[in-house]
This record gives sequence, structure tokens and C-alpha cells, in this order.
Amino acid sequence: MERNLLLTIRYDGSAFCGWQVQKNGISVMETIQNSIEKTLKERPPVKGCSRTDSGVHGENYCVSFKTSNCIPTERIPMALNCNLPDEIAVLSCQEVDGEFHARYNALAKIYTYRVLNSPVRDPFWAKRAMHTPYYIDVESVNEQARAFLGTHDFSAFCNTGGNTLDNVRTIYGFNAIRKGDMVEMQVCGNGFLYNMVRIMMGTLINMETGLLDKNIIGDIIKSKDRQKAGMTAPACGLYLTRVFYDESFKEIYPGVENEKKIGI
Amino acid sequence: MERNLLLTIRYDGSAFCGWQVQKNGISVMETIQNSIEKTLKERPPVKGCSRTDSGVHGENYCVSFKTSNCIPTERIPMALNCNLPDEIAVLSCQEVDGEFHARYNALAKIYTYRVLNSPVRDPFWAKRAMHTPYYIDVESVNEQARAFLGTHDFSAFCNTGGNTLDNVRTIYGFNAIRKGDMVEMQVCGNGFLYNMVRIMMGTLINMETGLLDKNIIGDIIKSKDRQKAGMTAPACGLYLTRVFYDESFKEIYPGVENEKKIGI
Repeated sequence: MERNLLLTIRYDGSAFCGWQVQKNGISVMETIQNSIEKTLKERPPVKGCSRTDSGVHGENYCVSFKTSNCIPTERIPMALNCNLPDEIAVLSCQEVDGEFHARYNALAKIYTYRVLNSPVRDPFWAKRAMHTPYYIDVESVNEQARAFLGTHDFSAFCNTGGNTLDNVRTIYGFNAIRKGDMVEMQVCGNGFLYNMVRIMMGTLINMETGLLDKNIIGDIIKSKDRQKAGMTAPACGLYLTRVFYDESFKEIYPGVENEKKIGI
Repeated sequence: MERNLLLTIRYDGSAFCGWQVQKNGISVMETIQNSIEKTLKERPPVKGCSRTDSGVHGENYCVSFKTSNCIPTERIPMALNCNLPDEIAVLSCQEVDGEFHARYNALAKIYTYRVLNSPVRDPFWAKRAMHTPYYIDVESVNEQARAFLGTHDFSAFCNTGGNTLDNVRTIYGFNAIRKGDMVEMQVCGNGFLYNMVRIMMGTLINMETGLLDKNIIGDIIKSKDRQKAGMTAPACGLYLTRVFYDESFKEIYPGVENEKKIGI
């Protein structure tokens, strides 16, 4: 009998050319497909929760696929891990409804952006965080980022190359914290345009390092002009941290109901 | 005027074939030498504090070298870092006595061994820690490791390949702690034989996972027989954490004076 399965995987993005299969480089998708084929003797299509860029990391990335193999669900993580390289691991596996799709059923996602904020760069964070010696004040970041909350047309925070029909997305929450030299900025939204998280983070970082004025994020959103926003922050600092397939994100980010709307 | 300089460097050992220049792979030593040559227009001999193996990491590795270049000492870290790859960084630089040698002047060193103790391996720790799903009880590890303390002939904890004249070393302290899934085992000694830290750690891990009996470390030391000790733990878990050029390690590890002696 065919089952639909949902895997949660973790991967070091520096080893891959992103989720999607590419000509130049090994993708997370084909690495997972190869492992499934070797383990389950089938090569079904696999559905990823997001098309993460080359170099972006997955902390709890979600993948769904169907199989007729009768291996018990709880044994699948260890079985697949035997046929996966060190840079990627299956953390868990659960059976889901036949119609479930890792991408289309996602109600919200949390991304984390890590910035190592130290005088000297750290080799142990080389491909795992952006580095800047300029001081980042997380209270100021949180204050600036409030303008992102709500439902807006995020065209100003989208690089060309995406293929979305409309650019309206909802941001449910944002939170920047400091752990010693490490600044962690988390954003939760119902979806993100091409490079959107990296441009949001790059804009906030540019404001802290003095390359952009503060208190202009609302105006940038209104402009719908990519040129007005900041840099696309480096891929190495970005992690897909969590995908929500139920509404539990509303408990984490209360106030989701009282959204602002700009440009729609 | 010629100055003698002491660098503290950090490197991700997975990118290198160890400290020493090798035919097959890029060594930390030649990477530092190349950076010095490019930055200071000289290629002096560089002295490393330890001949770390391929894959072993340096958290605060020490290097000394002499230069006639008149660049201010405080500018050297940033200047060298511009000519170093991401996997290695100079943290600090200080001028030292003309006779100072990074290896011969070291009075003690602390090594840290990291074991990820979780059901599933973690891609973010792939080349940075050993992984075992078998539970490691740090209290038990600390109890077993007490037998290492003091001055002993450590021939049983030495692989062939070293070139030391005698195998007597002094262990000043040992401490294992748990941080969530991560077990960190630190050892401080006046010097270590070839693979000695990795065999000490492998023996303790083998005792926890049931491959070796407990309470036999004293007997293993007495035997001077490498076959009686445990595995050589993987290089990826080992970090050179600190080098002492003064006696401040005695404050960290009191009781250094009351050493036991086995086999000498």
C-alpha cells in the first residue's frame, strides 16, 4: 500500500547548490532522491518545503514523498541516513495524509539569520554565518523590523529570478537576539519571495552599519522598488529553522490577526 | 630590527592535513607561511606549539616566528587575515623574547574532545565532533579519568610513529561536562605523545559504550602495552584549546604538586 511520508532533514548548505537540481553542483533534492532510491528501491518525486538557495542551511527542512515500500516508518530515518553523506541527515519521519505536500501545505516558516559580530572572523563559522566587525544593536534591529510585520506587497524585497504571481506576503513575527558575539535574527512569515529573507536581513544590517538610514522600511515597502532596499545578505548566514503545517505559530507570534497592510 | 612574534591562530582542521607540511594536502604551517610571505615580504621559519594531526582543530593554536618587517605588532592579525583562507584566522599577535619558541616554551596545553551524544548525527557537527548514540555519563568519565592524573609513563597511550626519547608525561587535570547533546572532555598536561589525547579519549569512550571494563586505566598505564588501551578516537573531535607559557594552569588545576607516579 502506498504511503505519503514527511521527512524532517538537516543539512549544511555549504556542501550543496541549494534544494533544486542544478547543472553545476550537487543539490539537496538529488542527494535525498539517491538515498531513497538506494534504500527503498524506488525513485519517487520528492517535494521540498522551499527552494533554498545555494549555501543556505536547513535546520529542520521538510520533504514529502510517496512510497510503496513496506519498511516501518520509524526505521526510515536510520535507513536513509546510512545512504546519505555527512553533510545531510534525516531527523524524523512521519506518515501524512495522501494529499499532503511539503510546500503547499506549509502555513508558515521561520528563517534564522546568523551574524558573527566580532573584531576577527571565526573559521568555525566561516560558511555558517555572515561576519561583520561593526556593532549590531539587537534592540535597534527589533525596532526597525517592526515595520515588516503584517501583510504587504514585498516587491522591494525581491530579486529578479523568482516566478511568483503576486508579491504579497504576511510577516507574523521578527525577533533578534544576541548570544555573545552571535546575533540571531528570526523571521516568521506565510511565505517568502525570491531572496526576500536575505534582502530583509541585509537591509537591517545595512541600517546598523550606517549604510542605510533608519526608520525607512515602511517607505521602502511602499516604493515597491528593489533599489531602495539594502544588500542581499550572504547565503551562508541563512537557516530554514522551522516549517508549520498547523496554526501553532499563532501561539508563538500573538497579534498575527492585527496585521497592517502596505501597498495592497 | 628583528622582532620575535607570537601569533594565536584558530583553524578548522577539516580543511588541512595537520600542522606539519605534507606531500598530500595543504598544511596549516605552509598556509601561515604563505600568508606571512605575502604580507611581510619575508618567509621566515615558523614554529608551531604542537604537531596536530590531520583533521584536528585549533581553537587557540600558537605560532612563533621572527621578522625584520616594521609593521606595527597590533596590525599584524588583520594584515595576515587578508591573506588567509576562511578556514584559518589570526586572533592576536604579541612581541616575545628573542629566545621564545612556541613549542619549547609551552609549560602546559589543554585539549578538548567533543562527542555529539545524540540518536541521530548532526550535519553541522560532521567534521567537528565524534558522534555516538550510546549514552556517555560524564560523572563516570570524570571518575575513570582520575587515574590519568599525575606523572606516568604513557607508553600504553602512544601509537607508533612518534619520535620521543621518553614516554613520561604529566597530566594536571581532566574535566568532562555535558552541554545538552554535546559532551566536552578537557585534559591538561605538560605534553602529549603521538595520538595520546585521542587514545585517552577513545579509552574513556570505549568504557562508556561497554567495549572496555571500567577501573582499569591504572593497570593499562602500568602495562605500557598499547594493545590494552582503547581506540584512537577520531581526529575530528579533537581541539587544541589553550597553550600556557606561564604557570597560571596551576591555578586552574590545583593539586598539580601532589602527583602520582606510575611506571617511572
